Amino acid sequence: MNKYEFFPIGYVESCFKQKFAIPRQPGLAPSARAVIRLSKEIFGREAVEGLEMSSHIWVQFVFHETLEEGWAQRVRPPRLGGNKKIGVFATRSTHRPNSIGLSVVRLESMDFTDGVCLHVSGVDLLDGTPVLDIKPYIPYVDSVTEADNSLADSAPKKLAIQFSSEACKQIETLQLTVDTDLRSLIEEILSLDPRPAYQHLDEERTYGVRLLDFELKWRYVLFEGETRVEVLALNP
Amino acid sequence: MNKYEFFPIGYVESCFKQKFAIPRQPGLAPSARAVIRLSKEIFGREAVEGLEMSSHIWVQFVFHETLEEGWAQRVRPPRLGGNKKIGVFATRSTHRPNSIGLSVVRLESMDFTDGVCLHVSGVDLLDGTPVLDIKPYIPYVDSVTEADNSLADSAPKKLAIQFSSEACKQIETLQLTVDTDLRSLIEEILSLDPRPAYQHLDEERTYGVRLLDFELKWRYVLFEGETRVEVLALNP
Repeated sequence: MNKYEFFPIGYVESCFKQKFAIPRQPGLAPSARAVIRLSKEIFGREAVEGLEMSSHIWVQFVFHETLEEGWAQRVRPPRLGGNKKIGVFATRSTHRPNSIGLSVVRLESMDFTDGVCLHVSGVDLLDGTPVLDIKPYIPYVDSVTEADNSLADSAPKKLAIQFSSEACKQIETLQLTVDTDLRSLIEEILSLDPRPAYQHLDEERTYGVRLLDFELKWRYVLFEGETRVEVLALNP
Repeated sequence: MNKYEFFPIGYVESCFKQKFAIPRQPGLAPSARAVIRLSKEIFGREAVEGLEMSSHIWVQFVFHETLEEGWAQRVRPPRLGGNKKIGVFATRSTHRPNSIGLSVVRLESMDFTDGVCLHVSGVDLLDGTPVLDIKPYIPYVDSVTEADNSLADSAPKKLAIQFSSEACKQIETLQLTVDTDLRSLIEEILSLDPRPAYQHLDEERTYGVRLLDFELKWRYVLFEGETRVEVLALNP
């Protein structure tokens, strides 16, 4: 069988240091930022000349952490509650026959002080992701206004968020060390409910994930009949 | 350096038999149809189960005919008249560091009589294209309404088309043998002006390309100060 070989044009430096709690699609967490650092040995500034004419770009990348995990003809998408299977090509699952991802992100800026760096936001990209290609987003082509998808017709419902007073204090201090709005970032990520599928509410259980250089801790609480997220701490 | 290997999940059977005259983006020729035939040895019907919930799909593929031709840091996009260079990543050029293409096409139907076949339209895909991945188009994610691109902010201007009486007669006969509207297909393709860049009008020059099982012939004529396309023939 024919095979095709591709190389990383660069790597992602992302606020997301673990797969858990990464938004399942791009654009859902506008405060989630990343840098795409192109390979200095291969690309000069001229390779991205004119890219500033695009507000958004496509990133084609490798799902490097699930690459070795294999794939199946059918998968359980979170949209279906995690208990119904559909065809892998009908989903954006990271476990695919070819582990190639596709995300549209906002191009915030470019800098050239140490090779070519693209600063992007609204990412759903894991730190260390190998990038295969960057393309400009062309609205008249890529934004298909007549398209519809009855499996996922709108953004997922969001949970309400509350912060513990400890978390509030910590965020205030740590905010000085980072270039994105920490409170918004946490709200955007946790309101999407990163739990794998519907789970029985357990107010005793604490969840945690590494975000930027911190350890984010939260739990779920019942408030007036609705599940809410309580941010417990953001530990350095 | 790390490398990643991917295999064709299937191949494209397209109305476009040569690179010349393929629309430069998908969606510009809605009558342009193709079949994506998944590898029978690997994929069963279950791999695309639920894909019918998507009106459109992403096709990630290999630019197989330009794969060996190499790439440069800067290219001359047709949008800039073919005489100004910009960075390769600022364009959708087929000559890229990794020869991976990305097109959104309409999913017309699927059939399973001889393996899995996806019938798609609005293609800009060459016959024989190796496909790396199929993903559902998710409008709330992929259709970025606030995006803009000042290099290519709208579809290219279209040329008017006229048909010779020979071409009209031929199309009438040949229409019986194909499942797309031949006249619309020809109009859509030629109105985009497939010539590489601005060229001096030469009314004597005849252009030709293989389309479906036919040889399409046309020329450019001046009509009331505007360049028009005259379709000369569609020879079997």
